[in-house]
Amino acid sequence: MIKVDISNIWGELSLRDLLSIESELSAAHMTVSERSGAGSEYLGWMELPDRAPTAEHMRILAAAHQIRQTSDVLVVVGIGGSYLGARAVIELLQGKNRNLRRGKGDPQIFFAGNSLSTRAWNELMRLLEGKDFSVCVISKSGTTLESAIAFRNLKWMLERRYGTAQAKRRIYAVTDKTKGALRQMADEEGWESFVIPGDVGGRFSVLTPVGLLPMAVAGIDIVAVLRGAAKAKKEYDLRSFENPVWLYAAVRNLMLRQGKAIELLCAFEPDFSVMGSWWQQLFGESEGKDGKGLFPACAAFTADLHSLGQLVQDGQRNLFETMLRFDPPKLRCTVVSDLKDLDGLNYLAGKTLDHVQEQAYLGTMAAHADGGCPVIAIDCGPVTDESVGELIWFFELSCAVSAYLLGVNPFDQPGVEAYKKNMLQLLGKPGM
Amino acid sequence: MIKVDISNIWGELSLRDLLSIESELSAAHMTVSERSGAGSEYLGWMELPDRAPTAEHMRILAAAHQIRQTSDVLVVVGIGGSYLGARAVIELLQGKNRNLRRGKGDPQIFFAGNSLSTRAWNELMRLLEGKDFSVCVISKSGTTLESAIAFRNLKWMLERRYGTAQAKRRIYAVTDKTKGALRQMADEEGWESFVIPGDVGGRFSVLTPVGLLPMAVAGIDIVAVLRGAAKAKKEYDLRSFENPVWLYAAVRNLMLRQGKAIELLCAFEPDFSVMGSWWQQLFGESEGKDGKGLFPACAAFTADLHSLGQLVQDGQRNLFETMLRFDPPKLRCTVVSDLKDLDGLNYLAGKTLDHVQEQAYLGTMAAHADGGCPVIAIDCGPVTDESVGELIWFFELSCAVSAYLLGVNPFDQPGVEAYKKNMLQLLGKPGM
Repeated sequence: MIKVDISNIWGELSLRDLLSIESELSAAHMTVSERSGAGSEYLGWMELPDRAPTAEHMRILAAAHQIRQTSDVLVVVGIGGSYLGARAVIELLQGKNRNLRRGKGDPQIFFAGNSLSTRAWNELMRLLEGKDFSVCVISKSGTTLESAIAFRNLKWMLERRYGTAQAKRRIYAVTDKTKGALRQMADEEGWESFVIPGDVGGRFSVLTPVGLLPMAVAGIDIVAVLRGAAKAKKEYDLRSFENPVWLYAAVRNLMLRQGKAIELLCAFEPDFSVMGSWWQQLFGESEGKDGKGLFPACAAFTADLHSLGQLVQDGQRNLFETMLRFDPPKLRCTVVSDLKDLDGLNYLAGKTLDHVQEQAYLGTMAAHADGGCPVIAIDCGPVTDESVGELIWFFELSCAVSAYLLGVNPFDQPGVEAYKKNMLQLLGKPGM
Repeated sequence: MIKVDISNIWGELSLRDLLSIESELSAAHMTVSERSGAGSEYLGWMELPDRAPTAEHMRILAAAHQIRQTSDVLVVVGIGGSYLGARAVIELLQGKNRNLRRGKGDPQIFFAGNSLSTRAWNELMRLLEGKDFSVCVISKSGTTLESAIAFRNLKWMLERRYGTAQAKRRIYAVTDKTKGALRQMADEEGWESFVIPGDVGGRFSVLTPVGLLPMAVAGIDIVAVLRGAAKAKKEYDLRSFENPVWLYAAVRNLMLRQGKAIELLCAFEPDFSVMGSWWQQLFGESEGKDGKGLFPACAAFTADLHSLGQLVQDGQRNLFETMLRFDPPKLRCTVVSDLKDLDGLNYLAGKTLDHVQEQAYLGTMAAHADGGCPVIAIDCGPVTDESVGELIWFFELSCAVSAYLLGVNPFDQPGVEAYKKNMLQLLGKPGM
């Protein structure tokens, strides 16, 4: 089980504060599990770990196998909840530079349709030159502008390169079971397709085919990911402060009530950064409404100790940190000895890099807490396919409980329509 | 000249507010140019554009040429201000995936020594397998822990692979002119070395060899970058609200005084993201002190409209946005036509992706301003070597003026020592 350590918040909170929120917390957790709150029609994500492995999971594995056989590159088209989860898991498990080390049989994976940048599109075109590729298009509706434009043009490229019949075998659609433009296209064209359950919202969809198909193509064991989530589902159902979900949800809400504006999620692992963006969407979109909610910001430590560290230590006292540590991999790096020792590091010779990182972690926590920035410490354990499933579950459940504590519907996003409406009007969309 | 448009802040600010800060602004600008404020001994960055091109710039070009000839990979070792600037410029100009498209004669560039992650180190080892590489080590002191450890181990690898004599020809040091461990090593070992001027702080050092050497190795025209900064230095010296620096510095300070806690820098260009981190350090470390300062956060639009957009539109009204647009590249992408038009996008057929992005930009600005999130719009113009120099200057000068407006020393960072002290004690460093 993930460990949440709140010993570095006691300067700002008392045990009494924590206990005072216990009944609210219990009620919020109950609201989730009994499906009695606002947005409860979107609690389908809670069933995802149990459902595995299904016939659809087997089809995902078969599709992934096919893509790995036939393609140098998989282009994953999607945005927001149809984008971040898969990329987050792949980067955390395989690193930011995975594509540099891949080839035939283990395709490169590029994400497209997540911007309207011409530069990004041109780069994708260069990266696809002379490569065999397949496209996985992910969209509940099929009409989200960024993804729909990218997919339209990629489909055209596939047809031009492989002919219409063969192109159909290189398109994989992840979409609604029955509704929407993409479902209609997939059915009419006979593309292999997978279902985004109607009761699962975008930011909670990483354990549906939305996340699982790209993960499987990357060679990640999706059954292990789901197993990790299923175990977590059982373990984190605990109704007490021994549940790390309770501690995390309680403290971040108490911090907000005491006037903190910003939660800075700091991971001591650079490859966590896209998972940080996933977390940012999860909490920002679930809680940032009705004039409420913390601002979720991310940092990569120790790098950002040399950039944001000054502000965290000494700036406005309106933020708290949630620090994540992970177990190191089995293969360690040892500091070598140096005859001249001009850099004065021989006192670390023979020590592992990981040992140094641990002291940085502990030292930073103490320094920031002393400086008036409370720290929630989360020990995420090892980085494995299974543990990532657990981590996803931990954050998803924490988010749902936390949002109910805050008094908002965790599962809607009424605010995202405003800019779309403006944009579509400016673009002259018929009927707008 | 970069254009700053503040027409979307009038809901929150009046012209009177803006005029009321004019004399303070004028004084702050004067404090910078007359070197009369706190920290003025670190105003050396203001001379950097004029100094070019010097004999040292010629040596940088020669070293870059040598590295490009002899190396498949350049490993740049540095952290914080010795890391972000170079990476920011390279990614903005050449894209996140530049390393995928490089080989002999145009080396891959990896950044190391910016974390204590064993995973990151192991990945670097895999990426260097079978590759000829050189190392550029950047550190004013040579004893910053992350960089010093990485450099020590990379030096050992170079010596083992190429022999001591040849290894010396593959190490390039960027450090203080006379002081510090790295200077001593460079002189004793006879490494090619470049100078970080003593009057330039880390976060203002991108136009010194700290940024210029890696840029030159990447094939960027550093003389053009410096020329852009030199032009900007003249143009942005203007003492009125026609100066975009004045507008930007004024509005962000007024926003803070009205209680905004967060500045969200949103770039409609995914390749800007590391430059966003550079901006974050520049402003966060310069202003985040004495309990003051905005929290600088970054987003990539339109992607993050599908994650943070909800919160920006509807969450706590404690943030404002600074939105950056860039001109598209010459090579445009056109939305193709589709016979069936199931996605309903034929109304955009023949339009460029860039046109769509422009409407997203305008639509988002209006929507967020309507929702109570004021927007400063910055039109950065084209993405060229020269314009990046201008952009760097714009942000650096804005930062200095803005920090003096805020009433803090823009050039110190007293808060970064606390965690280091803790960490070095925990590590058992002699004398701690």
